[in-house]
Amino acid sequence: MTAAPHSEVTGAAGRPLRVVALGGGRGLHVTLSALRLITDDVTAVVTVADDGGSSGRLRRELGLLPPGDLRKALTALAGDDGPWPRVFEHRFGGTGALAGHAIGNLVLAGLLEVIGDPVEVLAQAAKLMGVTGRVLPMSTDPLDIEAEVTGLEEDPDTVRRIRGQVAVATTPGRVRRIRLHNTNRKTEPPAACPQAVAAVRGADVVLLGPGSWFTSVLPHLLVPELHEALVDTAAARVVVLNLVPQPGETAGFSPERHLDVLCEHAPRLRVDAVIADADSVPTPDRLRRAASVLGADMWLDSVAAPARPDRHDPVALAASLRRAITSVRAR
Amino acid sequence: MTAAPHSEVTGAAGRPLRVVALGGGRGLHVTLSALRLITDDVTAVVTVADDGGSSGRLRRELGLLPPGDLRKALTALAGDDGPWPRVFEHRFGGTGALAGHAIGNLVLAGLLEVIGDPVEVLAQAAKLMGVTGRVLPMSTDPLDIEAEVTGLEEDPDTVRRIRGQVAVATTPGRVRRIRLHNTNRKTEPPAACPQAVAAVRGADVVLLGPGSWFTSVLPHLLVPELHEALVDTAAARVVVLNLVPQPGETAGFSPERHLDVLCEHAPRLRVDAVIADADSVPTPDRLRRAASVLGADMWLDSVAAPARPDRHDPVALAASLRRAITSVRAR
Repeated sequence: MTAAPHSEVTGAAGRPLRVVALGGGRGLHVTLSALRLITDDVTAVVTVADDGGSSGRLRRELGLLPPGDLRKALTALAGDDGPWPRVFEHRFGGTGALAGHAIGNLVLAGLLEVIGDPVEVLAQAAKLMGVTGRVLPMSTDPLDIEAEVTGLEEDPDTVRRIRGQVAVATTPGRVRRIRLHNTNRKTEPPAACPQAVAAVRGADVVLLGPGSWFTSVLPHLLVPELHEALVDTAAARVVVLNLVPQPGETAGFSPERHLDVLCEHAPRLRVDAVIADADSVPTPDRLRRAASVLGADMWLDSVAAPARPDRHDPVALAASLRRAITSVRAR
Repeated sequence: MTAAPHSEVTGAAGRPLRVVALGGGRGLHVTLSALRLITDDVTAVVTVADDGGSSGRLRRELGLLPPGDLRKALTALAGDDGPWPRVFEHRFGGTGALAGHAIGNLVLAGLLEVIGDPVEVLAQAAKLMGVTGRVLPMSTDPLDIEAEVTGLEEDPDTVRRIRGQVAVATTPGRVRRIRLHNTNRKTEPPAACPQAVAAVRGADVVLLGPGSWFTSVLPHLLVPELHEALVDTAAARVVVLNLVPQPGETAGFSPERHLDVLCEHAPRLRVDAVIADADSVPTPDRLRRAASVLGADMWLDSVAAPARPDRHDPVALAASLRRAITSVRAR
């Protein structure tokens, strides 16, 4: 790894670098925390297939977009002033009807009921939170994940379908392939949020991962218009790999296996850089080969948090991203 | 009633007139809507004894100040821009755990849990809502109303005690007298919010009513420090009477009876003006006499909404308030 200098990374004509990060949950939170150290022009494109916890309860009760991953993305890009980021993340305690609900989820649910358009809802919430950048849903409809899973029956090759983010994320079987369904309009394919598609097409850099691979990262490739935009865009494409396999959906997955399933779900997608943590890659040669199949260089850096080898350190990840992006854009 | 000219009403040295309105619920909402037509310096001091509906559920589940009346006061003083006043008033539908909760109540509950101090909570919410003026709780502790009621037993003079705002507001008996209890610190008398006491002492005008007489208006007189401030203040004291008796707590009450119970609960309180709707006062002479016992002039005006004789018209009430205030201050 040659350490590229920490030069200023900018977009055309000196404007801030335009970065779109696609993901969901804690993985997207860390990416956004890193990106805000690099540029002010960050757009988060967020999965809307969660069906667990507070989001799942709201979704079932009110039929709305699950707000939890959107809330986490807003918090990651929020300003330091004012109480709202803390308030959004606060969860009611106790054992009553509200126990476990994050306040921000309830606020987003209320905004969705009153305003309707999720893009406008997120713009209002972003203003409240002092967000630098933008948060968009990948689709304006709530979506369901369905997975083909093996290893659940006596015959290890029998394929079973399981449905729902929680079920897929925690399956003891081996996830082979996922699909997305539009919860509200069952006959139609999942529709992309137009502003998310435009953001990907107009970006300098697009980022996939880290995060729950099947339930937060790959879903973006299963929304047809978003898939096309990711394939077509002139942006530099960067994939950030997870530090450890996730119990359940990617138990036993090697780093290179993560790239293989990416390729299986999006054969036409080219990638420019794959960033992985040096200590999390047992066989660098295999990962380099898997990256090169996608057209990507491999960047092995120390990006784990010092005390938490299962979590990315935003500052280290920012440094790694800056190097990789500078190199790709200098090609 | 001589119609005083609609002269500009100002405070000392030409600053805006400093008005404090004490009440709760819909009555306070209409007073605040009227006052914002007169001055930019309005402080709402709000009852915190509600135990019904969304507020009651939140109070029981989380042990917080009941937020509903605070929310309504914020909305009455809110700006016209932005979605937040509408969002605060929006209630979740359906039949689930959230059904019936106003979003603003959930937001205030969240702020109370995160920030703690209700004065700071209301300042943050006011900023969000674009409020002109200030909203304060009468006490920083949730309070309980207890009423002595007759007419519930065969012997019409038997006094029974009933407890809780909803129980008192809807009793088929005749409310004789109320008391307030501090829900969280049972042995102590209800403590006033210090900023509310200071506001009353520093006001040009203080306003009591309209509203549920025993459960929204009189409670302010039962917080000792607030009572003293109302008795001592150099402000002009104005009482706005209800248009119709309220089924339950004031069923069958004449306008003058409302003043009598005010006097019974605060014998040392002097009043400068009593405003009543001309069409709602069957015996003006009796009302004039009851007002003069308190030291007040009676102002009989047309202050009901054209299509809703049970609701005040904010514009008509503003005109009436302006006349009464100008006259009192010219004395």
